[in-house]
Amino acid sequence: WFRDFVFSKIGEDWIFLALLGIIMALLSFAMDYAIAKFQTAQVQLFTVLKGSPFVQYFAWTGFPIVFIIFSTGFVHLVSPNAIGSGIPEMKTILRGVVLKEYLSFRTLISKVIGVATSLGSGLPIGKEGPFVHIASIVSTILSKLIVTFKGIFENESRNSEMLAAACAVGVSCNFAAPIGGVLFSIEVTSTYFAVRNYWRGFFGAVCGAFVFRLLAVWNKDEETITALFKTTFRVDFPFDPQELIAFAFIGIVCGFGGALFVFVHRRIVDFNRTHKRVSAFLMKNRFLYPFLVSLVISSITFPLGLGQFMAGELTQKQQIDELFSNTTLGNDPSATIDEENKYKPWHRPNVFVTLGVFIVMQFWMTALAVTLPVPAGVFIPVFTLGAAFGRLVGECMAAWFPQGIHTSDAVINKVIPGGYAVVGAAALSGSVTHTISTSVIVFELTGQITHILPVMMAVLIANAIAQLLQPSFYDSIIQIKK
Amino acid sequence: WFRDFVFSKIGEDWIFLALLGIIMALLSFAMDYAIAKFQTAQVQLFTVLKGSPFVQYFAWTGFPIVFIIFSTGFVHLVSPNAIGSGIPEMKTILRGVVLKEYLSFRTLISKVIGVATSLGSGLPIGKEGPFVHIASIVSTILSKLIVTFKGIFENESRNSEMLAAACAVGVSCNFAAPIGGVLFSIEVTSTYFAVRNYWRGFFGAVCGAFVFRLLAVWNKDEETITALFKTTFRVDFPFDPQELIAFAFIGIVCGFGGALFVFVHRRIVDFNRTHKRVSAFLMKNRFLYPFLVSLVISSITFPLGLGQFMAGELTQKQQIDELFSNTTLGNDPSATIDEENKYKPWHRPNVFVTLGVFIVMQFWMTALAVTLPVPAGVFIPVFTLGAAFGRLVGECMAAWFPQGIHTSDAVINKVIPGGYAVVGAAALSGSVTHTISTSVIVFELTGQITHILPVMMAVLIANAIAQLLQPSFYDSIIQIKK
Repeated sequence: WFRDFVFSKIGEDWIFLALLGIIMALLSFAMDYAIAKFQTAQVQLFTVLKGSPFVQYFAWTGFPIVFIIFSTGFVHLVSPNAIGSGIPEMKTILRGVVLKEYLSFRTLISKVIGVATSLGSGLPIGKEGPFVHIASIVSTILSKLIVTFKGIFENESRNSEMLAAACAVGVSCNFAAPIGGVLFSIEVTSTYFAVRNYWRGFFGAVCGAFVFRLLAVWNKDEETITALFKTTFRVDFPFDPQELIAFAFIGIVCGFGGALFVFVHRRIVDFNRTHKRVSAFLMKNRFLYPFLVSLVISSITFPLGLGQFMAGELTQKQQIDELFSNTTLGNDPSATIDEENKYKPWHRPNVFVTLGVFIVMQFWMTALAVTLPVPAGVFIPVFTLGAAFGRLVGECMAAWFPQGIHTSDAVINKVIPGGYAVVGAAALSGSVTHTISTSVIVFELTGQITHILPVMMAVLIANAIAQLLQPSFYDSIIQIKK
Repeated sequence: WFRDFVFSKIGEDWIFLALLGIIMALLSFAMDYAIAKFQTAQVQLFTVLKGSPFVQYFAWTGFPIVFIIFSTGFVHLVSPNAIGSGIPEMKTILRGVVLKEYLSFRTLISKVIGVATSLGSGLPIGKEGPFVHIASIVSTILSKLIVTFKGIFENESRNSEMLAAACAVGVSCNFAAPIGGVLFSIEVTSTYFAVRNYWRGFFGAVCGAFVFRLLAVWNKDEETITALFKTTFRVDFPFDPQELIAFAFIGIVCGFGGALFVFVHRRIVDFNRTHKRVSAFLMKNRFLYPFLVSLVISSITFPLGLGQFMAGELTQKQQIDELFSNTTLGNDPSATIDEENKYKPWHRPNVFVTLGVFIVMQFWMTALAVTLPVPAGVFIPVFTLGAAFGRLVGECMAAWFPQGIHTSDAVINKVIPGGYAVVGAAALSGSVTHTISTSVIVFELTGQITHILPVMMAVLIANAIAQLLQPSFYDSIIQIKK
């Protein structure tokens, strides 16, 4: 009786969404934990073996190869539906196309384990696309498991409303970004949408983000509920209006860069398919391509080789954290010794070269890595890439105007290169995915909104350029699959 | 030729939106300037006349009466379409109903002058609704004036697309909140909407917000581009998870309070209409009702009378600024003498009583003021009211836990009452208007996103309650007008 009362009063939709949010938060937290363990294990293994470079090399490259091969095999055996990002397919489903088996329990298992291992490899692969897919599956399964929710999915339009909300939950559990998550999921999956879906999405997303961050507090990772990649930029004078020219420049370059990325990715896929020799060679053994790609990428990031010039020993999370850092990575006389040590990976040989090499290498490595037959998102690697580019521009500006631009007063307001990194990250990820909600996601990720106008400006410019030149990354995949 | 080239490449829509954003920003800035001058003039007049309380009283009450009477007369003569908020009417227009003369040049003049004078009176009236209306008129006129843009408004669906974008520009120029402005305008005006409108809205909104804030820099009000009501809350430990109970409480009360506000407002309108004696009395002279309302409200806020217990001598902007302030308004031993003096208005007799009186009085005064036959929005007064309530809860929490809640460590993390004010402001304005984008607006207004989860939580709770009990304020007006 009590259950009936509660359900009738609050509405089954809301309980359903809260439950979905909580489950996804738990899943996201558990997977983040596992992935972080895997990624640091590779670095630790490398450190332990110090002194014997060859063993180090084999350990460094063998580690990702094993993970990727496992992921490839597992996904192939359990459910090949789990391959790729998942956002293009969700877009197709929300348009009304029925993709058989795409939202089954088998696919869920395949995707969860597949993502955990493919990200654990340390290759530049993201988890936000797969998470949208996972959230959609969980919502479908949840509705089937619990009899009370059955009504939701009997009605087809209601079904797609709930799936749209589930996509939002997926993004927001990933970044702890409820607002950006909702907007991003709307932009990538819908063309027209109902305002009441937006409500549902928000509710689920807040539940998800809330539990996700609360878990971090309980796990003693954080002292309290805060942003995922918290920044501490100066609030009173975030940037001078004249710096907007540099921000606009970032937007322009990221616009072209994003279009180029989509183009390069499609060329790689086309190349593998159309060249008969290549495709025959790759068909011989399904593990050959993953093996080669992981070998090449991990050889390049090997910290004793080329990797030393591109901060290769850092995990994705560390990279973003440090690109968003508040101090100047260049020669900053005010940096403490702790900071000096922390940012050392970016100083070999100096910050401009390191960032330059990082950008060039990360660009094609990401485009290559997302063609692997494993569950793989594109958002976070592209985000990192954009951050690196923004940081490079920011470091140049800081070197150019060591005393800041606004020097008419007695107060010196230095250039904040971290702010440029935030702008770059939003602009490039926005231009690759053709979304402007990435600007909201960066505010939620960094916990600071000081750079709102530069971010919005750069994202709009980048989008305008990228949309003229290429379809979005997700639409490009839909075209390829047709 | 050059013009043709530019237009064909960039697209006339974008130039149109940029132009609209710039015009609205200039208008918003000029009106803010005038309104601020009017409002401080009242306070200055009061200060100058110190020593003769009777003269002070007549000056204090006469000032708003003159303004409101002028506004009533002007609006009546030029165009009565300018009366009220404008959002309900825009919602009706966007649904396809043609309201004659509603978007004419006469109405524009009437609305601009009417808003400037009615807000200049210092009564609790907002300018965001009128601004949505003004932006829509400007966009309509702009398309008629410039031949090149004519194409935009020939097609009817395109016409409404552009109007929807103009609404977003209106909100964002007002608060310098591009993201929140777009979402707010979507929520209050649409039920279904196309994702590409959202793009247009963003572009116009960013242009508007950018120019609006840049004007403040050029005018030397601000050192650089920053948020309108910038806060400086502690970033490293914004709140303890246990404080979420208090935040949820704010959400619950604001939900009921918002519904009550809509109810009270409708009752006042109904009362004026249905009671024959009252309506006959009011019909005698159209200036009688405005006169009485302004007299009552300004008598109550008179700083030597009841006004001294409710910070009556502060303007709306000062009230919000101080409610969002970082220090505790109660007895804060760490407050400097400057701060003590600044927050003095809240200390007579003490902060709890002052805030309590302020909330009760502001509540019915706002509901009364928005029934006046002048251009009058409801958002900012309700926002202030919510901020005061949140602040009250925050001050109680600060008094209850003087050492903060999280005392297990050596570090003392005090309760931040300003954060509660932000939560309350978003929750109450969200529940009155039935929107969740107020949460985004507060982040953009304050320039801080530290309290994202409490804000989202409280806004969702408040909305859920308010939606069960009453229609939104705007829908309520639509019902009344039918």
